[in-house]
Amino acid sequence: MNREAIERYLEEAKETQLEQLKEWLRIPSISTLPEHQEDVLRAARWLADHMQAIGLEHVTLIPTEGHPLIYADWLHAGPDAPTVLVYGHYDVQPVDPLELWETPPFEPTVKEGPQGPDIYARGAADDKGQVFVHVKAVEALLATEGRLPVNVKFIVEGEEEVGSPNLTQMLPQLQEKLAADVCLVSDSHILSPTQPVIIYGLRGLWAGQLTVTGPRSDLHSGSFGGIVHNPNQALAELLATLHDEQGRITVPGFYDDVRPLTPQERELLAQVPYGEEEALAETGVPALYGEPEFTPVERTGARPTLEINGMWGGFTGQGFKTVIPSQAQAKISCRLVPDQTPERVYQLLRDHLEAIAPPTVRVTLEDFGGGLPALVDLDVPQMQAAVRAYEESFGATPLFTREGGSIPIVALFQQVLGAPVILMGFGLPDDNLHAPNEKFHLPNFYRGIRASIVFMRKVARG
Amino acid sequence: MNREAIERYLEEAKETQLEQLKEWLRIPSISTLPEHQEDVLRAARWLADHMQAIGLEHVTLIPTEGHPLIYADWLHAGPDAPTVLVYGHYDVQPVDPLELWETPPFEPTVKEGPQGPDIYARGAADDKGQVFVHVKAVEALLATEGRLPVNVKFIVEGEEEVGSPNLTQMLPQLQEKLAADVCLVSDSHILSPTQPVIIYGLRGLWAGQLTVTGPRSDLHSGSFGGIVHNPNQALAELLATLHDEQGRITVPGFYDDVRPLTPQERELLAQVPYGEEEALAETGVPALYGEPEFTPVERTGARPTLEINGMWGGFTGQGFKTVIPSQAQAKISCRLVPDQTPERVYQLLRDHLEAIAPPTVRVTLEDFGGGLPALVDLDVPQMQAAVRAYEESFGATPLFTREGGSIPIVALFQQVLGAPVILMGFGLPDDNLHAPNEKFHLPNFYRGIRASIVFMRKVARG
Repeated sequence: MNREAIERYLEEAKETQLEQLKEWLRIPSISTLPEHQEDVLRAARWLADHMQAIGLEHVTLIPTEGHPLIYADWLHAGPDAPTVLVYGHYDVQPVDPLELWETPPFEPTVKEGPQGPDIYARGAADDKGQVFVHVKAVEALLATEGRLPVNVKFIVEGEEEVGSPNLTQMLPQLQEKLAADVCLVSDSHILSPTQPVIIYGLRGLWAGQLTVTGPRSDLHSGSFGGIVHNPNQALAELLATLHDEQGRITVPGFYDDVRPLTPQERELLAQVPYGEEEALAETGVPALYGEPEFTPVERTGARPTLEINGMWGGFTGQGFKTVIPSQAQAKISCRLVPDQTPERVYQLLRDHLEAIAPPTVRVTLEDFGGGLPALVDLDVPQMQAAVRAYEESFGATPLFTREGGSIPIVALFQQVLGAPVILMGFGLPDDNLHAPNEKFHLPNFYRGIRASIVFMRKVARG
Repeated sequence: MNREAIERYLEEAKETQLEQLKEWLRIPSISTLPEHQEDVLRAARWLADHMQAIGLEHVTLIPTEGHPLIYADWLHAGPDAPTVLVYGHYDVQPVDPLELWETPPFEPTVKEGPQGPDIYARGAADDKGQVFVHVKAVEALLATEGRLPVNVKFIVEGEEEVGSPNLTQMLPQLQEKLAADVCLVSDSHILSPTQPVIIYGLRGLWAGQLTVTGPRSDLHSGSFGGIVHNPNQALAELLATLHDEQGRITVPGFYDDVRPLTPQERELLAQVPYGEEEALAETGVPALYGEPEFTPVERTGARPTLEINGMWGGFTGQGFKTVIPSQAQAKISCRLVPDQTPERVYQLLRDHLEAIAPPTVRVTLEDFGGGLPALVDLDVPQMQAAVRAYEESFGATPLFTREGGSIPIVALFQQVLGAPVILMGFGLPDDNLHAPNEKFHLPNFYRGIRASIVFMRKVARG
């Protein structure tokens, strides 16, 4: 009965939902550009007004030092019903290079693609389209049933593209307001329209800067070459101690806090269709690198790394200058996995560098901080609810994977709210996030709304 | 008799000589700056006219693709008399930062210093003042004796500060014109007004650029960290294989062509008053570096080096970017000693890098070329003539040393002309070459004229 009613509702609402999404996408809420500050606020107000209109309550723009947070809820599911917190963001990336866009980034345009219609616009997939999925799910349930199977809270921020500085800072004081049994985040992609995937782990991050100082000023390499340890060379020698030949990190203690992959996880990750061949084709490297005892998916998702993201010293222009520089520097970052912490990794790396630093130079390691990794227990019932949600809406059982990148807010939600975070993405790998011609696959938008409804129902049943 | 006459002449000529030098120094012959092209030509003409006036013959401005060479000679010493070729340059370095000059760079000013009067001007020591020493020596002999004890040729270029490109290129075709038994170069410094030093060796140079290429474009280190060999890391690992812990170069075969220091040389170099203490004070490094079995003077003058003059890859700005760059690069140079050649050293380094390059990246080593090292036999009679010249004019026996820098034209003179090159410098270590407040110590100028006269006399006697 309910099912039929809601199916009929969703079918009839498709055009309206699309037009509403287009209206929101027309607002250029680019959070990194000060000249768009008003637009960012306009996009926040648009969503808040819309939330109010569909029956969400306590709709508030929470002011921050930057762009406001949007809060809304519906809390009438009953005292024993679980609470779902939906997180997303209404800010978008800049659009340059504009000349590479085939349709204007803020004039949403539907075009037929090989797998069905796509909507092209900045923010279509990242993240307005995916946020709107859940708003439309709530609307459909309220419109057809007058109630939701669970309590729902929304927190939608306007600073994700600038690193969520204010939400991060304010989360502890919002702890009670946002208290929930599960957080639902739709800001990622699945493998294909017919192959959903659930990201159950995200790597954390530590970043810092290594400085090697030799002579008090740059020296002529003719006059001083042979008696001074060139800081470029000393830096290279230090950096070369950080990995063994097979790519294992050789900083003592680095792997001590790494939670081993379980046999169950290795089995799940082995099903992700991304291996050596795909990685070679995607990157163009002559051969892959890294811990041979792990697969590419494991190495990028479930194993920590140490990368030299930048390195510089001496003369780097055209031609030549025979200089021994006073300093050489490197930007280093580590991707972390549970139970590593940025603090501990910094300490281990600093200890190692101090222990091996030669007496001929001065070595310092600056700490830029970082974020914790996140891992969601595969066995929590909400994870099963997500699986069923995908199955019923996409018609396929999702795979499970761990993502190599970092979304620090996810670990923070887990930590501060004490609730599992379910990453239920509806984007596709070729959605051109942060690039020209961003798009969102419309069948995924509509399937997503159904998935969100199923998820709420399944969570309600525990 | 002669001696008295010339001493009287030199004493009386001091003021005139100084005024003439000042006149030449007023011409801002900065060869690197196109807007001074006319001034460079004017400085060349000034010297040519002056040479003509004092009795030198065949005075010619030899046109080049850049600034002209000045040639002049006096060839009437008799068929059996040896020929001395004097080399120098009339171009000077730029003067910026101008605000750090205490007197204007092209208004030569004599100021009393702790050890006597100094003349301050750009080019005072490098190299107009030192060239003028020999012109004034020739003038003094011609004026008092009507002849020179040896045949003399001058070749004075206007492009030393830009690397002598045209003299280098034209030297083979000037071979006959410049044929000589000894070349005299005054473009260096001694240790103090009372401690002359003869540089009997100069290091050569090879330079190149190492490129490590990994992925076809920059990658996100979150998504690809763990399966791609970061080119920054691979570069550091390659560079770290080039030296052992004590600073010996570990490129196979690198030392094969190095002519060992003779016991006589080691004894001579041990007398140069520059040791660990002086090197630490001068550079500010916490500890010296390099082959422990050699002294600092030996390491900078008589041993080859391999330096990373520049190194860069990835993100090097403020803040952080988690990138795996597509490429990382290093500028590498080697200081060479006899009998190393730039060609061979390039080949050895390339072979080594090819042999150890991992399969995960592509490695190329570009060859920028270089210059040969130079070493003058300590036992040639002209070297003894230089010793006596210093002794009689400075009142002290010169020490012998090998200079770490490279003056490629010196090796070229040896090679093309087949004559020993005597580096008879009159500058001081604190003359501020290439820096604000360049100066030339006037007592050294006058002693230099005497030294040049003595040198010619001694060379004449064989």
